[in-house]
Amino acid sequence: MNTASRVRLSPAAATLALCLLAAAAAAQDPLPSWNDGQTKKAITDFVARVTRAGGGDFVPPAERIAVFDNDGTLWCEQPMYFQFLFAIDRVRATAGAHPEWKTTEPFRSVLAGDMKGLHAAGEKGLMEIVGRTHAGMTTDEFQKIVADWLATARHPKYGTPYTECVYEPMLELLRFLRSAGFKTFIVSGGGVEFVRAFAERIYGIPPEQVVGSSGGVRFEVRDGRPVLVKEPKVEFVDDGPGKPVAIDRCIGRRPIMAFGNSDGDLQMLQWTTAGAGARLALLVHHTDDEREYRYDRESSVGRLDKALDEAQQRHWVVADMKADWKQVFPRSPAPR
Amino acid sequence: MNTASRVRLSPAAATLALCLLAAAAAAQDPLPSWNDGQTKKAITDFVARVTRAGGGDFVPPAERIAVFDNDGTLWCEQPMYFQFLFAIDRVRATAGAHPEWKTTEPFRSVLAGDMKGLHAAGEKGLMEIVGRTHAGMTTDEFQKIVADWLATARHPKYGTPYTECVYEPMLELLRFLRSAGFKTFIVSGGGVEFVRAFAERIYGIPPEQVVGSSGGVRFEVRDGRPVLVKEPKVEFVDDGPGKPVAIDRCIGRRPIMAFGNSDGDLQMLQWTTAGAGARLALLVHHTDDEREYRYDRESSVGRLDKALDEAQQRHWVVADMKADWKQVFPRSPAPR
Repeated sequence: MNTASRVRLSPAAATLALCLLAAAAAAQDPLPSWNDGQTKKAITDFVARVTRAGGGDFVPPAERIAVFDNDGTLWCEQPMYFQFLFAIDRVRATAGAHPEWKTTEPFRSVLAGDMKGLHAAGEKGLMEIVGRTHAGMTTDEFQKIVADWLATARHPKYGTPYTECVYEPMLELLRFLRSAGFKTFIVSGGGVEFVRAFAERIYGIPPEQVVGSSGGVRFEVRDGRPVLVKEPKVEFVDDGPGKPVAIDRCIGRRPIMAFGNSDGDLQMLQWTTAGAGARLALLVHHTDDEREYRYDRESSVGRLDKALDEAQQRHWVVADMKADWKQVFPRSPAPR
Repeated sequence: MNTASRVRLSPAAATLALCLLAAAAAAQDPLPSWNDGQTKKAITDFVARVTRAGGGDFVPPAERIAVFDNDGTLWCEQPMYFQFLFAIDRVRATAGAHPEWKTTEPFRSVLAGDMKGLHAAGEKGLMEIVGRTHAGMTTDEFQKIVADWLATARHPKYGTPYTECVYEPMLELLRFLRSAGFKTFIVSGGGVEFVRAFAERIYGIPPEQVVGSSGGVRFEVRDGRPVLVKEPKVEFVDDGPGKPVAIDRCIGRRPIMAFGNSDGDLQMLQWTTAGAGARLALLVHHTDDEREYRYDRESSVGRLDKALDEAQQRHWVVADMKADWKQVFPRSPAPR
């Protein structure tokens, strides 16, 4: 028996060792996928200011609320919001039970692979597809359907599961903020149940910290067993001015940091930065058509126009994906 | 200089000392205001089972969700929900700006102190009073109005601030559960903004863990400054079947413990206990007309009828306030 194998840590000593390790880790660069520069410095300086005990900008841990948009901010949103791609796949998967879809728009276009027809149906058509494919099942059943889809579907450009199309720099940022005592929330235009199906596993954000759009849900007792059944009607759209409203309803405290990437995040950033004390707003600007996509003012998905102007006027931080991010995805997949 | 004053704890040693103190505290009775007996044992046994690592009923900390009704479960709800008493006070305080109220029911009854007339207006009348007194201001202004009321208003029976009409045994229970890794939520039929005005201070429950009924809120930019304005329409009633729906929407995970006191909590308890694995549902039964109030099946406020039957059938825990609680209020105020 050698000496090393006889070392036994008491639980207290083990706790202490973990504390020391955590302190050592924090001393290293917390954002290694961010290139050094103004953007990274704006983030780390802000966190240092609000966490410095006794400093003028100190914020108690309970008030360190950071909100993140999801599509285009934490994961990719091109060529279309992933939830729409999910809905389209669901139309195909359940078409057998809906023979009428073969002749009814927008379902006909989806089944015929007629992207032009689908485009013509516009947002209204997409919302109808979402409504029909996201209702009629229990909430538990829906969770399973999304989980199965996430396990098998692949992104058309990268060929990876959608859950790998998340931004490594933002994953680091989430961990960094949590290690600094922040509570991280998602405030997404996507459906709250859809986002929750992966948020805990890929972002470390538990379901109770996911805010999103929501449809009607009905409580029912079936064969003596209570279930929640999803209804086709949209009850709340968590986008644009809906975001501060949802923050008020679900979080009840004004965030001190907000992260977005499109005009749909404008009011959330306005609401966050209008509070007293230190505040930080950041927009992810999609400038990298090699590693990801390049789009802003003219894009139909994730348009960034008014919010970009306001960011310039108000000196919000704009993260230039091409310049500021050393790495985009966790596994840096090459485009196919 | 004596020896004791030269002892200096390094930060690491201080952390260690705190850990040891916390462990020692947990070894003491965590629920001293609960009389020993079946009810207390049901709670402590349950917590021991779900937190015992390696045990068959172990629940990971992230899934230790406990939900609490507020009115009648965490604080008193007699002679009327406190939020209604607040609304009535607001009618009186703002009557100067509404001369028409002198001749319009239910406002006339409130201003005339005509409790019979107010009673005749029923729940519809009360909801109208709530709607009118809870709208037209910004969310920040409303928080201040509630805080001011809580600081000055007194309970008609106890003569204490309403925030002292909270149940000491339940405060202990909240702390006990949190020390066992639970996340404690309020799921109240009361307005979410009203409950948040005191939940953090008196229960240690942060705003993002308060779920409640809600009215419309509108985002607006006033003089270049974004505000959220409260609207008179009720958007969501977090009562009865609304409670599991709200739990799904705001928490997104099925609780493993649920605490209520009335038929309005029935579906929340059904939903909680229908999940797989260890579950505990508890009803507070108001049996103590000396120290508090005595009411159940016939009460107009906080009726406990169907849920009491179901508790007996399903072997839910029923806390008998008179028998199970050594102390009711933190300061044990005597009735006036």
